[in-house]
Amino acid sequence: MTQSDPQTRHQRLRPLQIRRARKEDREAIWQIFRAVVAGGDTYVFDPNISRRKALAYWLGPKTRCYVALSDQGIVGSYILKANQPGLGSHVANAGFMVSPSARGRGIGRAMAEHCLREARRLSFRAMQFNFVVATNRTALRLWENLGFKIVGKLPGAFRHSRRGFVDVYVMYRRLKPAV
Amino acid sequence: MTQSDPQTRHQRLRPLQIRRARKEDREAIWQIFRAVVAGGDTYVFDPNISRRKALAYWLGPKTRCYVALSDQGIVGSYILKANQPGLGSHVANAGFMVSPSARGRGIGRAMAEHCLREARRLSFRAMQFNFVVATNRTALRLWENLGFKIVGKLPGAFRHSRRGFVDVYVMYRRLKPAV
Repeated sequence: MTQSDPQTRHQRLRPLQIRRARKEDREAIWQIFRAVVAGGDTYVFDPNISRRKALAYWLGPKTRCYVALSDQGIVGSYILKANQPGLGSHVANAGFMVSPSARGRGIGRAMAEHCLREARRLSFRAMQFNFVVATNRTALRLWENLGFKIVGKLPGAFRHSRRGFVDVYVMYRRLKPAV
Repeated sequence: MTQSDPQTRHQRLRPLQIRRARKEDREAIWQIFRAVVAGGDTYVFDPNISRRKALAYWLGPKTRCYVALSDQGIVGSYILKANQPGLGSHVANAGFMVSPSARGRGIGRAMAEHCLREARRLSFRAMQFNFVVATNRTALRLWENLGFKIVGKLPGAFRHSRRGFVDVYVMYRRLKPAV
């Protein structure tokens, strides 16, 4: 990166901090969740989902929730959990949301790298994304860049708010155990 | 089929009846669930799952549960639900369990055909199986025979009780609307 890279400048101003979510983060998480799903173009949730349902999902009892803080406050959140119970619980699943006002600054990537480290630390052997909307090029590029492969394609499985039925990818990568 | 086919003879004795599950079916469903998952070779659930957790899953609030009855009583059960909420709710998901003592009589196939009809009637546009264990040849053959295609492969995503980590398939088929 060069000195003129905006991301570098931003990170020099105040590096992104990523930590486990706390009770007092709920309102900030909800605002990000609401803004992200409102588009109906990346996440499967009803764009008009209630605060209660959104937080029940994002802060579920078997889900670890993290937030990313910049000088703007909470600018992103991610969740990490087992993708399946019992005999499938060695595969992790994760979800990421960045505040629309903070996009393009590498916050999604920073959270994803943090998430992969956490998943290794928690002894997950792989990570799976069940529902990557094929038109979500930003996410696809990021996941491929981080070593995920498309391992499945679900024809027309997402009802995009503007494009109608579009395909969905299942993405997967193995994780080497932490040393 | 010929007259000597055991399945034909059985079905003449008493055709399989498939209907929505009722409260009083819970114990029979639990006995089948327990017997099926005990093997740790087809379903992801902990082979020692509790009755409470098993029934909470199988009879969940957004899940339609059906039972198959022969002259032996309840010999199988299946569930039908949306695979995703909101913008993915047009794709159905289903799960099938046949009592080990009633295997090989076409009960799984009869339930699956019933399930596909029900899914069409409920206006689902496709059906997805998220977790078909690659070593479960009986299931794979049945789903392919019923028009499902393997659309994804999850490497080592199932911890098989005897074989260790084995692959898992995602299977999918479109549904034509009921006339």
